[in-house]
Amino acid sequence: MSTSNERDPQALSGRQASRAAGTLQRIESSRLFQTAVIFIIVLSAISIGAKTYDIPPFFERLLSGLDMAVTYFFLAEILLRFSACQDRKRFFLDGWNLFDTLIVVGSLVPLQNAEAVLIGRLLRVFRVLRLVSVVPELRSLINALLKAIPRMGYIALLMFIIFYIYAAIGSLFFSAIDEELWGDVSVAMLTLFRVATFEDWTDVMYATMDVHPLSWIYYLSFIFLTAFVFLNMMVGAILEVMSEESNLETATQAHNERHEMASRLAQMQQQLDDMHSLLKSRDSGRG
Amino acid sequence: MSTSNERDPQALSGRQASRAAGTLQRIESSRLFQTAVIFIIVLSAISIGAKTYDIPPFFERLLSGLDMAVTYFFLAEILLRFSACQDRKRFFLDGWNLFDTLIVVGSLVPLQNAEAVLIGRLLRVFRVLRLVSVVPELRSLINALLKAIPRMGYIALLMFIIFYIYAAIGSLFFSAIDEELWGDVSVAMLTLFRVATFEDWTDVMYATMDVHPLSWIYYLSFIFLTAFVFLNMMVGAILEVMSEESNLETATQAHNERHEMASRLAQMQQQLDDMHSLLKSRDSGRG
Amino acid sequence: MSTSNERDPQALSGRQASRAAGTLQRIESSRLFQTAVIFIIVLSAISIGAKTYDIPPFFERLLSGLDMAVTYFFLAEILLRFSACQDRKRFFLDGWNLFDTLIVVGSLVPLQNAEAVLIGRLLRVFRVLRLVSVVPELRSLINALLKAIPRMGYIALLMFIIFYIYAAIGSLFFSAIDEELWGDVSVAMLTLFRVATFEDWTDVMYATMDVHPLSWIYYLSFIFLTAFVFLNMMVGAILEVMSEESNLETATQAHNERHEMASRLAQMQQQLDDMHSLLKSRDSGRG
Amino acid sequence: MSTSNERDPQALSGRQASRAAGTLQRIESSRLFQTAVIFIIVLSAISIGAKTYDIPPFFERLLSGLDMAVTYFFLAEILLRFSACQDRKRFFLDGWNLFDTLIVVGSLVPLQNAEAVLIGRLLRVFRVLRLVSVVPELRSLINALLKAIPRMGYIALLMFIIFYIYAAIGSLFFSAIDEELWGDVSVAMLTLFRVATFEDWTDVMYATMDVHPLSWIYYLSFIFLTAFVFLNMMVGAILEVMSEESNLETATQAHNERHEMASRLAQMQQQLDDMHSLLKSRDSGRG
Repeated sequence: MSTSNERDPQALSGRQASRAAGTLQRIESSRLFQTAVIFIIVLSAISIGAKTYDIPPFFERLLSGLDMAVTYFFLAEILLRFSACQDRKRFFLDGWNLFDTLIVVGSLVPLQNAEAVLIGRLLRVFRVLRLVSVVPELRSLINALLKAIPRMGYIALLMFIIFYIYAAIGSLFFSAIDEELWGDVSVAMLTLFRVATFEDWTDVMYATMDVHPLSWIYYLSFIFLTAFVFLNMMVGAILEVMSEESNLETATQAHNERHEMASRLAQMQQQLDDMHSLLKSRDSGRG
Repeated sequence: MSTSNERDPQALSGRQASRAAGTLQRIESSRLFQTAVIFIIVLSAISIGAKTYDIPPFFERLLSGLDMAVTYFFLAEILLRFSACQDRKRFFLDGWNLFDTLIVVGSLVPLQNAEAVLIGRLLRVFRVLRLVSVVPELRSLINALLKAIPRMGYIALLMFIIFYIYAAIGSLFFSAIDEELWGDVSVAMLTLFRVATFEDWTDVMYATMDVHPLSWIYYLSFIFLTAFVFLNMMVGAILEVMSEESNLETATQAHNERHEMASRLAQMQQQLDDMHSLLKSRDSGRG
Repeated sequence: MSTSNERDPQALSGRQASRAAGTLQRIESSRLFQTAVIFIIVLSAISIGAKTYDIPPFFERLLSGLDMAVTYFFLAEILLRFSACQDRKRFFLDGWNLFDTLIVVGSLVPLQNAEAVLIGRLLRVFRVLRLVSVVPELRSLINALLKAIPRMGYIALLMFIIFYIYAAIGSLFFSAIDEELWGDVSVAMLTLFRVATFEDWTDVMYATMDVHPLSWIYYLSFIFLTAFVFLNMMVGAILEVMSEESNLETATQAHNERHEMASRLAQMQQQLDDMHSLLKSRDSGRG
Repeated sequence: MSTSNERDPQALSGRQASRAAGTLQRIESSRLFQTAVIFIIVLSAISIGAKTYDIPPFFERLLSGLDMAVTYFFLAEILLRFSACQDRKRFFLDGWNLFDTLIVVGSLVPLQNAEAVLIGRLLRVFRVLRLVSVVPELRSLINALLKAIPRMGYIALLMFIIFYIYAAIGSLFFSAIDEELWGDVSVAMLTLFRVATFEDWTDVMYATMDVHPLSWIYYLSFIFLTAFVFLNMMVGAILEVMSEESNLETATQAHNERHEMASRLAQMQQQLDDMHSLLKSRDSGRG
């Protein structure tokens, strides 16, 4: 076993890489390192945002230096994780590995380049996503969000149907009143989204009520349908997913306890059967 | 059995229809077909909405062709489902059957007709409701909504009482200040709904506070009553319905497990009784 | 027993009143009567509100007649309930009895009186509260609300503290900027309530940011404290009360089932003890 | 034991202080005292706020006298609690002790001082926080809030990332359109917070849609991400903490009941084993 490894340089480097990756991951998952990295990334993000305020140049250079150090640390960590991976083809099939690699590679694109300033600045923006790579709690939050998407998808579809039907009716009746708000179905859907967020919706309503006095029924029924019933359903869907997880544990424990008792009862019944037949046989034997 | 069927052409066609309906329903419930149909309906809905943007005529014709194909597929599916139904009088008593039939029949009304453009366009709008026929998850969402209506009804009634009382007081005191907003009880209720959605409610309040400086009590007590207490109750009512369903399963399983244990205990007690009387009778027999 | 009753005219009338009150309550709790009464009250309420629209005079007279009939029915019901009550002093200690009596007596005050039109119209408004007397579900909704008040009270107190502190700080720093919004603590609290409802809060903020550029911290921290954390706590408090009730039932049933099993187990253990001592005594007896 | 105490004056005073502190805490936790203190503090807070209204000078002097009395009561209570504390170094490590001391000391700073009026008025503001010291329910509410902070912290971090990325994109594309709203990343984040609260967000959107017609995608995706998904997650996080506490009790009770039954079953099984072996031994003995 050991001999074959000593002869195979690739396997050797694989083992070393695995050990080094383990060390880096231990560093990465340490509380201190995480806090420091969060601090650096948030500060560097704020420094980009607050460029209108005067920041001492020393502080700015320090930050960008630390920022570079964090990026190189991640690069090293990913390279080692990749070389430690048994099946290298499957490495990028894992969503988080792909995500980490893209963010780190994106962070390394030189930003001083005069041309393609727009792309450079956009890339710089997405560097803040490295925070998700560092903090495991953020990953589990996003995993929980992704889990809620399938059910949310159907609610979104139902919402789309309601919006579409109301938008079509609205553009049919109100397009003559205000072309900008009700011109066609797509514009009307945007107007209805505005109504659903209660943003100056009465201005929209009073305008159409001058022509169609009963059009308040249209708005009120829409608001009741959307804002009240469906948003609540959305809340419900999310809560369900969350409470499912928290209840599951208690329910499973109770189930296991009941299962244990049931198997103990089955044993006791078996023993009673044995004793009963023993008593009976003796009875008949005596008779 | 088989002979009677062979002689009865209606029963024969019923059996064939049932088999064909089964095949169609298998196709309908397949993941691929559903995704394709959702895609087609949503695209055709968007194409109606986005008629101001330039869509290549080939793509538009393709979409309307696919749309027609889906409609005819649904027509065939419903016709077969109807002919496979044992008790044809009861077919339309089921709400979903009636809904499906109305949507499909409505989809088939020719829209190119120059007269009755308004009705034609309205019918076209409701074609998007076919999505609900296709996706079983949407049906169960709507079933859940319908189940929540009875309880919501009472909350809506309580809300109406609160709105009515405040609207009556408002129209009594404020109608001289702003006839448009507080002219009569019905207009005042609309104004109060606006206040309940926080839509420019301070403009309404500041206007009345110029005359009645203490009228902020009226608005704040109304907002507390409506927006805070009752909307939360609505959320609560919906959540209750949803959590009931999700908890029910766990509770039912636990109940069944406990029931099983109880019946096993009853059996054991019976056996113990038998053994006890056996022991006693022998005891007395020996005595 | 019967003789003493026959001689006592008061007891006799009490028994008759009790029987008549029972009949009236059976009528009152019947689904048909409730639906009819709700319909009449809501229609009569709407007719007051919609007095600007033209209602046929026959329909109006019919409604007011039915409205009067419902009022007299309630009067009869309360009078009979009162005379059937064993301890007449305690009758008005029950909150709902007092409420019913006040509403019915208020409904009977003649409204055609030219003088005191304001009081008359206010009384007419509160007649809609009779709906709460009719519908038992509304009573249980209000009971649930009243139960949530103690806990809500403490949250309201905490909210008051936060509002007061922010209002005092606001009136200290911003009163020179806008006297109308930040003049004194009470006015500042109203402005902060407006900010908490997101009603044109950016206008308020931009005005103070011109003088104090960092005042966005004041608004954002206030919004986070109030709108996010505390409103959510309110939702939580209400949901807790509701879920308590809905969970209680399941939990109580499970508890009862477990209790039954436990008592059965205790019986079995007792029987086992008896059998064991029987076996032992015979053993020693034989020895 | 008693002799050493009699000789040690410090221990004696410690015991007396402990007894006096106990008496004061009994007074403090009595319903009557709490209600009176809440009343006094709220009234004195309102009197500061309502200084524009005319308050009779006698009433004002009475209030400030009562206010002073409450402050001195708290001072005495804290001093006694401190002297009754076994380990005086640890007294201020408890967050609530430190909080109480700071509030009481702050309340005692003389406010009539002409200089430092601003600090004096700010200190007066924080005196209302004494309410939290008095009412135990407020303390438990705040403890519950503090418990929710760790999880909320990660959601806030995720929110910050989303805001930052959108703000960076927004300031990249829209800064030329409106320098005031999209000038740099920090200003854009404030604008996005405004959009997230639905405050005149359509004005912001319509302005950018004139230049970039597809910019509605930017706003709608942002609103969906923030307002819908993440606020709901916040609600979920808080509810989870609350439901955890309320469910725990029921679950623990059920667990205890099951545990009791399980131990009883174990006893019964033991007894059955004994009986079985007894029966068997007799059987073999007879054989």
